[in-house]
Amino acid sequence: MNIAYIGMGIMGQPMALNLIKAGHPLTVHNRTSAKCQPLAAQGAAVAKTPAAAAQAAEIVFINVTDTPDVEAVILGPQGIIESARPGLTVIDNSTISPDATRVFAQKLKDKQTDYLDAPVSGGDIGAQNGTLAIMVGGKKSVFKRCLPILEILGSKVVHVGPIGAGQTCKACNQLFCAIHALACAEGINLARQAGIDPATMVDVVASGAGGSWALANLGPKMLNNDMDPGFMIDLIVKDLKIANELAQNAKSPIPATALAQQLFVAAQAAGDGTSGTQALYNVIKKLTPNSTKK
Amino acid sequence: MNIAYIGMGIMGQPMALNLIKAGHPLTVHNRTSAKCQPLAAQGAAVAKTPAAAAQAAEIVFINVTDTPDVEAVILGPQGIIESARPGLTVIDNSTISPDATRVFAQKLKDKQTDYLDAPVSGGDIGAQNGTLAIMVGGKKSVFKRCLPILEILGSKVVHVGPIGAGQTCKACNQLFCAIHALACAEGINLARQAGIDPATMVDVVASGAGGSWALANLGPKMLNNDMDPGFMIDLIVKDLKIANELAQNAKSPIPATALAQQLFVAAQAAGDGTSGTQALYNVIKKLTPNSTKK
Repeated sequence: MNIAYIGMGIMGQPMALNLIKAGHPLTVHNRTSAKCQPLAAQGAAVAKTPAAAAQAAEIVFINVTDTPDVEAVILGPQGIIESARPGLTVIDNSTISPDATRVFAQKLKDKQTDYLDAPVSGGDIGAQNGTLAIMVGGKKSVFKRCLPILEILGSKVVHVGPIGAGQTCKACNQLFCAIHALACAEGINLARQAGIDPATMVDVVASGAGGSWALANLGPKMLNNDMDPGFMIDLIVKDLKIANELAQNAKSPIPATALAQQLFVAAQAAGDGTSGTQALYNVIKKLTPNSTKK
Repeated sequence: MNIAYIGMGIMGQPMALNLIKAGHPLTVHNRTSAKCQPLAAQGAAVAKTPAAAAQAAEIVFINVTDTPDVEAVILGPQGIIESARPGLTVIDNSTISPDATRVFAQKLKDKQTDYLDAPVSGGDIGAQNGTLAIMVGGKKSVFKRCLPILEILGSKVVHVGPIGAGQTCKACNQLFCAIHALACAEGINLARQAGIDPATMVDVVASGAGGSWALANLGPKMLNNDMDPGFMIDLIVKDLKIANELAQNAKSPIPATALAQQLFVAAQAAGDGTSGTQALYNVIKKLTPNSTKK
């Protein structure tokens, strides 16, 4: 199947590569075209515009940073909309606003082009290994048709509901990630300040009813002062803005998420925007008198 | 080894039973003596006072609700202190204040009686199956001497540090449990209010980077409106009071814990004190305009 992939970031590159490895002819596009070279070296064609990438494709994937970026790729000059036609399906792997998603899908529907919102979870490792969780919104029939392709990219591909439902589910996912990171930051800091070995605490707690993916994975990074991303603070702040807007529209209070959001913004202010989300620990540490100890 | 167990609650009864099953002569005591009958039926002696229970024991366990209860058992009239002597070790499985723990241990040390604080995690199921996590504070030599007995009760028995370290670790554990329950409550409510199937969201998120023990175990209970404890709201409020005092003494801010604490108090106010911690969901649901829908 002719496939196009737009957005050669830390997630898009390995996902596109897995499509090539599965034997699909692939065309790639990126705003900064140099990022297409690793895929070109594996046999991908390189398109100069989103419209050109989508021209001969049956499925065009999008994986860019934020809502305005997806808007530009679809609706902007030389955007996908210019190649939109019956038989083309747009699948958005970005994490963006559910509301905007519904607008984009409608614009494409006007051209008889199908749409799935399909944000992913699992990080660059999951992207490389094809073990992502993929949360899909859109028509069930379109989902079923695209499932074999999506299963190249992820090991847990779930149809959540109509257009926008994938993005809504992803916003919930990020809510949990954010709150759990804050739990790690204040729990580990409490252990340290209260004079017990934080690593022993993490070991015991992670194995029981206090355990989380975050504690098992980000906890040791906090303890080792390893702030490499994983998943960047700048991106969780973007995602929490989406979650907050969603929650306000849904009239659903998310107090702990809002608290985590504010502290992630403090992490950005402290210069940790491009660090991993575990750098939230630095914010809590800086609040404490003995924070210079370690 | 002659062992005594004081406190025949939902945790103490099955833990005491496991000691009998392992072949140890056991004496039990409970303020309300009727609760000793199931153990008496299995061959345990029943003592009328804590002092009498400890009289012939090498190890006396305590498993009662709160700091004042432990104080009464150890230092009150006919308390353990009246039988305190060299060769007796007091092991406290309750979840109480680390500071008070150090006071109790010192009073017993004055009588050459050893002390371990050994709060547990894993619930009534873990108590029944002997698969508790046990976080132990006290002298390493005392820990090593008592380890074979503790390993009857738990599958992860960890020496955390000196007297009080077990309680400090448990306070951290409860911090995670409380924050994770709040994440579940607001995440599931957001999914519901935003119009996606909350069960699908829980399924996808629990399997990935947003996952936690709480989401996998309390999430489905929230979805099914099953509010049976598990672990009671009244008890997590008690434990969060301990965590909050610990954090203030350690000068370590725990903002998300404090937020969860307030909302658990709201759950108590709503009459859910004896429900499981998953009843925090009711608090968030009541805040939302469509909360009567489900």
